[in-house]
Amino acid sequence: MKKAILYHAGCPVCVSVEQDILTLVDPAKVEVEVVHLGQDRTRIFEAERAGVQSVPALLIEGGNVLHLNFGASLQDVKQG
Amino acid sequence: MKKAILYHAGCPVCVSVEQDILTLVDPAKVEVEVVHLGQDRTRIFEAERAGVQSVPALLIEGGNVLHLNFGASLQDVKQG
Repeated sequence: MKKAILYHAGCPVCVSVEQDILTLVDPAKVEVEVVHLGQDRTRIFEAERAGVQSVPALLIEGGNVLHLNFGASLQDVKQG
Repeated sequence: MKKAILYHAGCPVCVSVEQDILTLVDPAKVEVEVVHLGQDRTRIFEAERAGVQSVPALLIEGGNVLHLNFGASLQDVKQG
């Protein structure tokens, strides 16, 4: 089972993308953890270290980050 | 079965994202068509009309477009 983390910040773009991702992903192959960085601010640093530059973004186990459309920059989330 | 179209242009970002998407997607729920706009230029107009602004992008049946990272603008693909 592969793991993936969807980082978002509750913005309209984030919510729409979250629904799309959960529709697309194969639950038998990939376990998606959804992290709201606005509510769980302790994980902003982890997201930044993983290469997340904006939200929503999907970090895939193995290191690739998919930035999905553009909701907000990580900088904005840090200041929010 | 939902349909999705992954538009790309053969760039390194596109190739990497294509692999990630094919890993994530549930083949029982979603059928992904991969379209190389550099080779299949007749479909550029269709992509543009669907709201694709850059590649790689995933158009999901129902209308949502996920722009995944940034490989090239559609404008660049048109001129390429």
